[in-house]
Amino acid sequence: MIAPAFTPPNRLLLGPGPSPVAPSVLRALALPTVGHLDPELLRAMGECREHLRAIFGTSNAATFAISGTGTSGMEAVLSNLIEPGDGVLVATHGYFGARVDEIAGRCGGVVTRVDGEWGQPSDPQRARDAARGRSIKLVAVVHAETSTGVRQELAPWSALASELGALLCVDAVTSLGCIPIEVDAHRIDGIWSCTQKGLSSTPGLAPVSFSPRAVERVRSRKTPVQSFYFDLGLLLGFWDAPHGYHHTISSNLIYALHEATRLVLEEGLEARFERHRRVSTYFLECARGLGLAPFVAESARLPQLTTLRVPAGVDDLALRKRLLSEHDLEIGGGLGALKGQLWRVGLMGYGATEGNAERCASALRDVLAGERGAAARR
Amino acid sequence: MIAPAFTPPNRLLLGPGPSPVAPSVLRALALPTVGHLDPELLRAMGECREHLRAIFGTSNAATFAISGTGTSGMEAVLSNLIEPGDGVLVATHGYFGARVDEIAGRCGGVVTRVDGEWGQPSDPQRARDAARGRSIKLVAVVHAETSTGVRQELAPWSALASELGALLCVDAVTSLGCIPIEVDAHRIDGIWSCTQKGLSSTPGLAPVSFSPRAVERVRSRKTPVQSFYFDLGLLLGFWDAPHGYHHTISSNLIYALHEATRLVLEEGLEARFERHRRVSTYFLECARGLGLAPFVAESARLPQLTTLRVPAGVDDLALRKRLLSEHDLEIGGGLGALKGQLWRVGLMGYGATEGNAERCASALRDVLAGERGAAARR
Repeated sequence: MIAPAFTPPNRLLLGPGPSPVAPSVLRALALPTVGHLDPELLRAMGECREHLRAIFGTSNAATFAISGTGTSGMEAVLSNLIEPGDGVLVATHGYFGARVDEIAGRCGGVVTRVDGEWGQPSDPQRARDAARGRSIKLVAVVHAETSTGVRQELAPWSALASELGALLCVDAVTSLGCIPIEVDAHRIDGIWSCTQKGLSSTPGLAPVSFSPRAVERVRSRKTPVQSFYFDLGLLLGFWDAPHGYHHTISSNLIYALHEATRLVLEEGLEARFERHRRVSTYFLECARGLGLAPFVAESARLPQLTTLRVPAGVDDLALRKRLLSEHDLEIGGGLGALKGQLWRVGLMGYGATEGNAERCASALRDVLAGERGAAARR
Repeated sequence: MIAPAFTPPNRLLLGPGPSPVAPSVLRALALPTVGHLDPELLRAMGECREHLRAIFGTSNAATFAISGTGTSGMEAVLSNLIEPGDGVLVATHGYFGARVDEIAGRCGGVVTRVDGEWGQPSDPQRARDAARGRSIKLVAVVHAETSTGVRQELAPWSALASELGALLCVDAVTSLGCIPIEVDAHRIDGIWSCTQKGLSSTPGLAPVSFSPRAVERVRSRKTPVQSFYFDLGLLLGFWDAPHGYHHTISSNLIYALHEATRLVLEEGLEARFERHRRVSTYFLECARGLGLAPFVAESARLPQLTTLRVPAGVDDLALRKRLLSEHDLEIGGGLGALKGQLWRVGLMGYGATEGNAERCASALRDVLAGERGAAARR
């Protein structure tokens, strides 16, 4: 069986990611492939690192990208920083916090997990209480919980990690490039993100950053990192001069990341954050006009990812299928415990525009009318 | 620091990979990004799986691609199939066999490693002798050793694995799409490859295939797979209907793989293998004409990757730098123990043409004359 050439549909990507990709990023992606040790590629990789440091708010030398998706970044950071038997404190308030717990456990961590309510930030005081009397070497928290649209303030977690003498790790998959991240100011030791949300590149790389203290922790491990592919020492052996071979990084994904991070910095971080806030406020007004209620309180709401309650009597899946087939528009549904109860609307990166907010609201109005009509006829 | 837009050089990629990418594959890469659960993307992924089954020579249901490079494929297969304490027999005859050993060890495998000579195939009889009296659950061998250009016959390893009652795993990173692979005929239980060599796509995905017996082995593990990112059960939960979320696969890399595998099958596997043989024979004639000697005996030589001895008195690195800067041509140097002693010339996939062989020979003639002149003046 040989399939005919594939032509994807032209979707407006307003789910929790991937987000819309700027034309110049797609053009960069298709530039000619070069070798993974080509001096010109190594130069572009060095520039990507500089861009990422600026966006992460860090001067960490060990800032680079894992060759995989955001989840690979999570696993890379955790598998390097956790040794079997290490006490790990994981605060969860959604699907991705649970994933951190899962991966920390597979790395041999002895996890103390503090489950918060989905839809609210985690409570540092509860975590502090849970940690009492335990040896905690690493604290992990999710900055922007993609499953709920909740923003987590990092300062209290930085304070808690300091009290415990533990490293602080942060999931920034849905925050990087959308809301401020201050890796150095918050003394974050390990952080991971992805390329296809706030940065609006294509998926396939996971930006990460390790503090000097974290690098030192990895260097002084008593056991080898369980993963060869994610081994920090080997990865830095490739990313740092003299650049020894470790794996064949995709030059094309580097081109796209280079261009995407350039666009972020050319816009300016403050201007970008403000655009996300403005567009989000506008979209939420439109959504309220349709009778849709936000899932998250204003104080903890992520501007880049608005979560809305599915109204009673509306078939979540049927509505999203119609958005896709009739409007070429993707939004996300609920994950895990929130399946069928939430819509997740991402107005992220290149996609965070008033025009897209309007197009989304108008498409929602259209399909909601249809769905409510169908419900009334049932 | 904001770097200016990056424009890569236009290299002729005749190293051990990445190989030259067909224009239609680069065009596919830059098609609009869609969501990782978009029904149209899932259709394209299904078609990629069919294409990969045909190229791997298998009807294995569990045939798909890991979101990472070839090394991630190696780690994915080994980390699923090895449980801590399992006896593993690894036959090495080069750099990548050693990597299999390294990863198998990190997975908790108790490895019996049989080191063969670099430049020759591994000897199944020596491996059989080494396995005597040991409990071996998995045998791993490298089909096409990228560091030396040696081809390994698989039938004797299939027989050995059967004798031992062990699973057979094969590294096909440099063989897939260049020389025949018969996963089903050779009863291979786990195999990994990459997208940027014989398939001539861009790097970033790792095609893998697991036999039903291997899937069963994973299902009946007593311990969880140490990697969440590479966990076969979770990956199949995404690749198989009803397609639950596991990670955000890069739609763009799927488009490229779809087109690249289409091109392989449209050419036809037999025609493709014959083209590699023909072009390789032609290139070796040209190389001999320049006084260059092959590193590997004809009986074990890979057509897609010709290894040549660096002539006495020639500075390997200086020559390859000149090839790159003066001819925009990349070839590979020696890895590990063979550093400085070998050139590795890949005429792979889309790049396997008489024209490229000629361009390479002509560039080599030019820089060799320069280097030999420089050596004479020293």
